[in-house]
Amino acid sequence: MSQQPAKPKTAITPTRADDYPEWYLQVIKAADLAENSPVRGCMVIKPWGYSLWENIQRDLDAKFKATGHVNAYFPLFIPMSYLEKEAQHVEGFAKECAVVTHSRLEAGPDGKLAPAGPLEEPLIVRPTSETIIGETYAKWVQSYRDLPILINQWANVVRWEMRTRLFLRTAEFLWQEGHTVHATEQEAMEETVRMLEVYADFAENHMAMPVIQGTKTAGERFPGAVETFCIEAMMQDRKALQAGTSHYLGQNFAKSCNIRFQDEAGALQHAHTTSWGVSTRLIGGMIMTHADDDGLVVPPRLAPQHAVIIPIYRDDAGRAEVLAYCKSLRQELAAQTFHGRPVTVTIDDRDLRGGEKTWGWVKKGVPLRIEVGPRDLAAGAAMVARRDTGEKAVVPRAELVSGIAARLQAIQDNLLARAKAFREAHTRRIDTWEELKSFFTAANPERPEIHGGFALCHWNGSAEVEKRLKEELKVTIRCIPLNAPAEPGKCVVTGEPSPRRVVMAKAY
Amino acid sequence: MSQQPAKPKTAITPTRADDYPEWYLQVIKAADLAENSPVRGCMVIKPWGYSLWENIQRDLDAKFKATGHVNAYFPLFIPMSYLEKEAQHVEGFAKECAVVTHSRLEAGPDGKLAPAGPLEEPLIVRPTSETIIGETYAKWVQSYRDLPILINQWANVVRWEMRTRLFLRTAEFLWQEGHTVHATEQEAMEETVRMLEVYADFAENHMAMPVIQGTKTAGERFPGAVETFCIEAMMQDRKALQAGTSHYLGQNFAKSCNIRFQDEAGALQHAHTTSWGVSTRLIGGMIMTHADDDGLVVPPRLAPQHAVIIPIYRDDAGRAEVLAYCKSLRQELAAQTFHGRPVTVTIDDRDLRGGEKTWGWVKKGVPLRIEVGPRDLAAGAAMVARRDTGEKAVVPRAELVSGIAARLQAIQDNLLARAKAFREAHTRRIDTWEELKSFFTAANPERPEIHGGFALCHWNGSAEVEKRLKEELKVTIRCIPLNAPAEPGKCVVTGEPSPRRVVMAKAY
Repeated sequence: MSQQPAKPKTAITPTRADDYPEWYLQVIKAADLAENSPVRGCMVIKPWGYSLWENIQRDLDAKFKATGHVNAYFPLFIPMSYLEKEAQHVEGFAKECAVVTHSRLEAGPDGKLAPAGPLEEPLIVRPTSETIIGETYAKWVQSYRDLPILINQWANVVRWEMRTRLFLRTAEFLWQEGHTVHATEQEAMEETVRMLEVYADFAENHMAMPVIQGTKTAGERFPGAVETFCIEAMMQDRKALQAGTSHYLGQNFAKSCNIRFQDEAGALQHAHTTSWGVSTRLIGGMIMTHADDDGLVVPPRLAPQHAVIIPIYRDDAGRAEVLAYCKSLRQELAAQTFHGRPVTVTIDDRDLRGGEKTWGWVKKGVPLRIEVGPRDLAAGAAMVARRDTGEKAVVPRAELVSGIAARLQAIQDNLLARAKAFREAHTRRIDTWEELKSFFTAANPERPEIHGGFALCHWNGSAEVEKRLKEELKVTIRCIPLNAPAEPGKCVVTGEPSPRRVVMAKAY
Repeated sequence: MSQQPAKPKTAITPTRADDYPEWYLQVIKAADLAENSPVRGCMVIKPWGYSLWENIQRDLDAKFKATGHVNAYFPLFIPMSYLEKEAQHVEGFAKECAVVTHSRLEAGPDGKLAPAGPLEEPLIVRPTSETIIGETYAKWVQSYRDLPILINQWANVVRWEMRTRLFLRTAEFLWQEGHTVHATEQEAMEETVRMLEVYADFAENHMAMPVIQGTKTAGERFPGAVETFCIEAMMQDRKALQAGTSHYLGQNFAKSCNIRFQDEAGALQHAHTTSWGVSTRLIGGMIMTHADDDGLVVPPRLAPQHAVIIPIYRDDAGRAEVLAYCKSLRQELAAQTFHGRPVTVTIDDRDLRGGEKTWGWVKKGVPLRIEVGPRDLAAGAAMVARRDTGEKAVVPRAELVSGIAARLQAIQDNLLARAKAFREAHTRRIDTWEELKSFFTAANPERPEIHGGFALCHWNGSAEVEKRLKEELKVTIRCIPLNAPAEPGKCVVTGEPSPRRVVMAKAY
């Protein structure tokens, strides 16, 4: 008989170590978050996945409103000619967009349907809305009294990506796009940075996903932007994920869309605009930051359910007793609040084997699992298991109820601390090309996804170096960190002088 | 000198009596709700209008969840071949739909952009999602244990309407569409009726818009439905507005999409499905139910702001005192609740002439206007004006604060009672063709929009009669009311026997 090495059993196959990209898809499947649709590149966001998006929307929307923004809605379609007005913008988006050319279907001579009613001008399904919103703002803005305009839109957008991946890159995705107009460069720049901070705060304190705030290099900027700010997070395969962007658009779109205002002195000026967005991609970031080999781990602040109560009993008499206990426990827990909202608890009394039921909730990432059996009734207690650490404890009922928010916060804090520690462990200051190359070259050529992480390096500021990084190492400059200390050094590629280190990494 | 007859001044020109359709557009403009976009038939929903939609979403979503539904998201695009699977469905929607035929833009020899990358199969921008969701459900449903599926989607949809009108009929609109799957006809029918009741409850108790619940005639059914239920409201021009529909789809879509399940006995069965939806059209209904010649009137339960406080002062010293009073008053009001939510109050301290400011809020339809001047400070009071009746009263501050919810509810109740009375006044039981004709013929041929209202008539059940009503009177059967008592009679057109009266009206 051959002996196999002992391997811990995991709920997800393959594990992260075995095959990270496939693990990601299996976590999504096991948690029932989303699936590919019959329409190429478009996903179906299933109820559990959509409730994550609802919670993201709820919390972000409150932050947008707290910073003075209101919501509005602009058309799905953009006339083709609008895209052409901003040269860089059209170059960035024309290559992959859904084009509407007809307004009805008609049966042909063969009885089969075919497009009919050709449009005079083709319409683009919005890949982003700077141009259509800009055209509208041009009508709204006449005087400095009309400024600032601080509007956000929750919407779907379409970018005809060739290689798609659930949540991370899909042909259609859900997002929010803020579009603001200001009288001065300074005000617009302040807005751009303010919203970047809102994103960073949300990522760290709601998603427990630490991020680096920075600016993009010229080559990585949003098409048409003067400056693009971003938040970058490290996933568990040590790749970077751009999780949100905030753009200072200068007067580029104001000029192409003709957004002008009369200033206090009566002079006509072009306005300064910004735009900023995050999308359902955040859900992909959440998965790849926290999920483990047993499936999804949802940070409590975003959890559709904070806890699940699983009643355990042998017979009908036991069932009635245990269920009554669970129901009153649920009621007491639901009367508690976590970050100002009621604690959400569900009782799972489905007729399923215990193991199947327990693993179902583990794979869905519910922060706390509470099991109640006859012994707990007798003791006035319950068994509580943390999803993040797997720790289990029998806790007196009163303590469980009064301490529920603290228990959830402990998970929230641990997830953030764990993710920060992971990032720190895989971030290295690198000063030579040799070391950089080895950092980004997998030890095992069959596992190219296992590489170093974030390299903090000096850079001469040139596009040539970026090109070489991309071609030779498949690495990009993720951002020039906002909080990077001035530290003169030499470019890791050319040896030329550099004022500070930038973040280099492979990326999604 | 000629003498003009005295005419009361109104904030909206023209008035309802002068030109109803134009009045409607001017109310929308004056309240800054929405405008036509540069894209034909698509509207821009401006912040004040969008906040109405946000409140509609908030309240309806809570009702959907309370009845066991969850939200999800399905693709924007539908492959052309899907539409063809259900014969009636394709006939209903193929005539007006946006067709995506290309996946990118390319500069041609003349340097101008043109569609490129033709798709193998054209995609339709969803006009409704029965087919794409049905295809997905077919994969999810295997056993009776997978049923019911109770899912709702908040989304944008596109129907290439030729004649558009803000909120009432636009090429793109926002809506929710529920799509459910059940094991039995009875369960599906119960769901269909349950959601109709949710809509009726929402219309009456949140929008203060009374509705008649009923079923559509065969000719007015949703394409592919076995039975379409609807709620019908009367607008102030006495036309009917279909404000929401709930469809029992039978096994039609289950068959075309192949949604089958193994029942408890092990036999394979086609499921029974439903769909139900309301849209931004509700905002048009709210306007035409409550707005008056001074502009919008928002029912308190949907109001973005329940009250506005307008400080009145002469100089800077007065300003400081009055503003301090307003701020503490605002704080006290905001600590009160109305239907479980904090009362929302804004202070308008803009540097505008008093009249302009006051009329601005009147036109926006804010339920209560509170004016605070030096005299109110001295008396510990405030002047309160109701938007619905125009009544003004000076009220002691403590009474204003403690009674704010009752004051808002009084407005809510009055709006509903007023709308009900209007509907009753313009609803008539009619038994002869002559009377019906005169009821629907304007007394003044230059004002064809002024006609009778709802005619409750007997009908022989035939499509021929419906055709004649449409052709000769431009009247349709709005619904066969659910609560109509059995009352044998004779068809108003043919004299043939009829078991009960139906609602006939001109309609949007």
